[in-house]
Order: sequence, then structure tokens, then C-alpha cells
Amino acid sequence: MVADLNDFVYKEVLGGDPTRKSLFILLEKGEEQAVLICNKEAFEEDANLIPKWLKSAKLHLLTENDKYGNYEMALDPELNLLKTTLIYPANAFDIQKYRRQEFFILYETPEDYKNITCNYLVETKQFENLKWVYNFLDKKSEEERIIYENPDKHEGFILAPDLKWNGTNLDELYFLAVAHRRDLHSIRDLTPNELPLLENIRDECAKTIEEKYGLKKSQLKMYFHYQPTFYHLHVHIVHIKYEAPGLSCTSVLLDTVIENLKIYSDFYTKATLPFLRKENDPLYKKFVEAGRV
Amino acid sequence: MVADLNDFVYKEVLGGDPTRKSLFILLEKGEEQAVLICNKEAFEEDANLIPKWLKSAKLHLLTENDKYGNYEMALDPELNLLKTTLIYPANAFDIQKYRRQEFFILYETPEDYKNITCNYLVETKQFENLKWVYNFLDKKSEEERIIYENPDKHEGFILAPDLKWNGTNLDELYFLAVAHRRDLHSIRDLTPNELPLLENIRDECAKTIEEKYGLKKSQLKMYFHYQPTFYHLHVHIVHIKYEAPGLSCTSVLLDTVIENLKIYSDFYTKATLPFLRKENDPLYKKFVEAGRV
Repeated sequence: MVADLNDFVYKEVLGGDPTRKSLFILLEKGEEQAVLICNKEAFEEDANLIPKWLKSAKLHLLTENDKYGNYEMALDPELNLLKTTLIYPANAFDIQKYRRQEFFILYETPEDYKNITCNYLVETKQFENLKWVYNFLDKKSEEERIIYENPDKHEGFILAPDLKWNGTNLDELYFLAVAHRRDLHSIRDLTPNELPLLENIRDECAKTIEEKYGLKKSQLKMYFHYQPTFYHLHVHIVHIKYEAPGLSCTSVLLDTVIENLKIYSDFYTKATLPFLRKENDPLYKKFVEAGRV
Repeated sequence: MVADLNDFVYKEVLGGDPTRKSLFILLEKGEEQAVLICNKEAFEEDANLIPKWLKSAKLHLLTENDKYGNYEMALDPELNLLKTTLIYPANAFDIQKYRRQEFFILYETPEDYKNITCNYLVETKQFENLKWVYNFLDKKSEEERIIYENPDKHEGFILAPDLKWNGTNLDELYFLAVAHRRDLHSIRDLTPNELPLLENIRDECAKTIEEKYGLKKSQLKMYFHYQPTFYHLHVHIVHIKYEAPGLSCTSVLLDTVIENLKIYSDFYTKATLPFLRKENDPLYKKFVEAGRV
């Protein structure tokens, strides 16, 4: 336990996220290193708390124009806390994890999928390391978290909250629908044959979530990631407001997939699919080696 | 000018953005109302500043597990300022602007576009109120901001920084490429006939930005909005890291558009296109009236 950072020496900023107001700092204490993760806290929308911190506010005028005044506002420190994690002692792996990395966008053609991605996925056993998903589908674990199931082995799925959701704040509602079929790895494998499964997920999840949480389908984003984090077909279902970091060009809406397959049956065997990778990512390196970046 | 808020009475939270750590508060002073917009500031990554605020840090332990310690951190108020705007006196329009509104996702079929959207766009003269764009294309205004032009009237465009960009922080780089053609309103109008224009935008903008800013094409996101903010064909070009709020399901990558048109020439006349609207938006209301939500 640490009460202040006076024994630590500032070394460098490893990285951060200005949008979400976080910062990762490398510190040193003697021979040892530490990573300090700092996050500005979101405001608590608590009618008991807000008048208290407003009372402590000191305003310094920056600019003024008619009825608009821009200020810097200083608050009582205890009413404007940061949420912080100190990893100490930190090893090279910890430090690497928080070190800034550049992102790149890749465009995977069907040929790239066959020649680069698929080989990589087979080599790294991505189609095999799915025991935790099968445990879930077989109800060997997490059964209590299931809120809905369509048990059909070909057109069915299981719906459960994602672990990232605290279960109470509707603005951050996050569910996963996981298909029972085990031969579908990602949207690349989808054909019109899968339309009943996809429509079941869309319609039955919307109905279940509306009944349980009062949110309409038009208040939900239902989408696939490409590339997915794990290669067993699943759909993310989140509140329309919820913004998962870095996803803006790598999520494909379930409704878009359904419509594309209805109009062009071969869409996902012909489409070029964009995805994002960090510079140290092995799949990114394979694309670079193949001259595809 | 205001030095503290002791004369103001807290009324209610109008809205906010927990991801970006902002909050909009309604205040009252006598008969008058005020809107207070509070933003936690992003950390300045300044090696002179960070050691100073680290020195002022007081840590309160929350949980500890092996080398991971979670703390609340209190800082000197002047080293942890909020950026604040006070609108005072605020009128009903100011208040409405910051009041929380629900978002909805709509799925526009080609029939919806013809029967609902197009009628609405014509009624509200969206295809006509483009004088500012034409001034720009005719170099009657903002000429000094142009960093590249392909002057061809059919396959050319102008490239200039978006006003949202400060011109220095590369992580937030933001350009707009605006087509010279005046008969293209959005991606709905795109056919293989536009491929040379789209490929010119993609290739020439990538080249120009790489030469001027050292960023590769794979570090840029080039995309259309659907619906666009203004109905004259333009492409947003931003740093891959830059996350514009609320866009995750309404941006369509330029490369995706090009590939779709190459494979399916009629793609954008057949596709169902998703877009987001707030509950008070007139186009949203038209879709509701037509029973399409």
C-alpha cells in the first residue's frame, strides 16, 4: 500500500487515451519499475453530491462572449478524485502492455482471407481454443448468467450479459448472443443458409431485452466484430449510446449482414473486409510480409 | 464574469457523456436560468508538468491484489482543473440543446429513401442550401485552407482541414475531401460511374497527407457519413485513432464503398443503410409515422 508517490521518480508517459481522459505513466523506485494508470472519473449524476461540489467550485475566467463564459474550474480535491491503478513492481510485459502502439487499418480480400488470415488462424489454433465457449454452450459453466436460449442446434443460440456490463446501468447494457453451431467462425462463413439463425438472434434477442429492460430494438446496436476476438460466431448487443473503444470501422451490424445476404447471396465470400491491428500484432505482420499493407 | 457558483441553485442534470467525462447542469439564479457545461480535462503529456502533479498526489487504497493496487487519487485542485462553460442567462433553446435525448437506429431501404428520406430532403431544401460548399469549391471563401485540389469537374475534388482540427495534433488529424460534382448528394447516388472520382480521392488524399504529415494510408480512416450532415458528396479523413462521438454505426469506409461498387454495380441502389437519429429529429418522426421504426 502506497499513500503518496514521493518515493517514485517519473520516467515517461507510456501512453493514454485523451478521449477517455486516461494516462499511463512509467515510474521508478530504486531498481524497480512501476506503471501508474490514471483515469479522470466520470461525473456521478447524484443530486445529493452535485450541489456539494458546485459549492466548492472556484472559477477562473478564460474568455467571455455575450452570455457564454469559458472558465477553468477548481474543485475540492476529494470531490474530484482520479481512479488510479499502480502496478508495482512492474515487469517488461506490464510496461509493454501500456506502451503506446500505432494502429493500422487493413483491408482483407477473400484471397487474403484464404492465403494469409486462415493460415494464421490455423497455425495459432484459433479454431480450436474454444473450450470455454463450448463449456458455456454445454452449460458446464456460467449457466446462471443465461437470460435466454433458443436450443435448436442449427438455428439456435444462447444470450447472456457480457462480463464488461455491471448489470444495472442501461446506458452501458452489453449482451452477447452465441450461436450453437460450431462450424461458423466469423462473418466470412455466412451464407443465405444462415439467415434463419441470424434472424432468430435479431428477433428473439430484441424481444427478450425489450421484455426485461424496456429498450426497443431501435435503441440497440447488434453487431459482429471483424476480426472477432474469438472465432466462434457471436453477436454483440449493446445500448445504442455505448461506445466500445476503437471499434468504429470494425463492427458490422447484424441487420446489414442479413440484408447483404438477402440481396447478394455470395456477399461475404466476395467482400473486402476492413479490420484494425496494432503494429506488434502477428496478423498485421503477416499482411506486411505479404505486401498487403 | 463569475468567480464561484454560490449565487446559483442546482436544479437538474440535463445530460452528459460518461465516456468523455462531461456533464451538463441546469442552474437557477432568481428568475434566470443557466447551463453549466463541465468537462474533465484530458491529461497534458508534459514532462515538466507531470512530476509536479504526481508530487501533489494523495492515494487512498481501494483494493489490493498482488502487485496491483487500486486507489482513489486526490490532486492539488489547480493541477486537476475542469474546463467549464457557463451559459447565463440561458434560454429554452440553450437548455433543450443540452437536455438528454434518446438515440435510435433506423434502417433505410431503397424504398424508404425514395418515399420518406428524399421527400423530406426536398421539403427541407437540403439539396439547395449548399451555397457555402459552392463558395468553397469556387474559391470564393476559405481558399487559403486548401492543401490539395484535383480540378477536374467530373473526377476532381478539393482537400482541406476540417474546422474541428487544430492543425497540430496528428492524433486528431481531420480533413474533408469535397467532390467538384454537384449532382452527388450522398453514397445513395454512387454507381460504378463514380469509381474514378472515388479512387482519385482515396489515392491522391493518401499521397498528399503522407507527404505533408508522414502518415500512411493504413493510419487513416477515410469514410462517408450516412446520413451526411450536408448533402454534397464529401469524404471524412481522420487519424485512425480519432473517435468522433456516436459514429460507430453511421460511417461507411471509402474503400468499402469502392469494393462494393466493383463487385455489385447496383449496391447503393439496393442496400439497406443504417443511420442514427435523436427522438426529436424530424426525419426520425417521418420514419415513425411511416411505421418504419
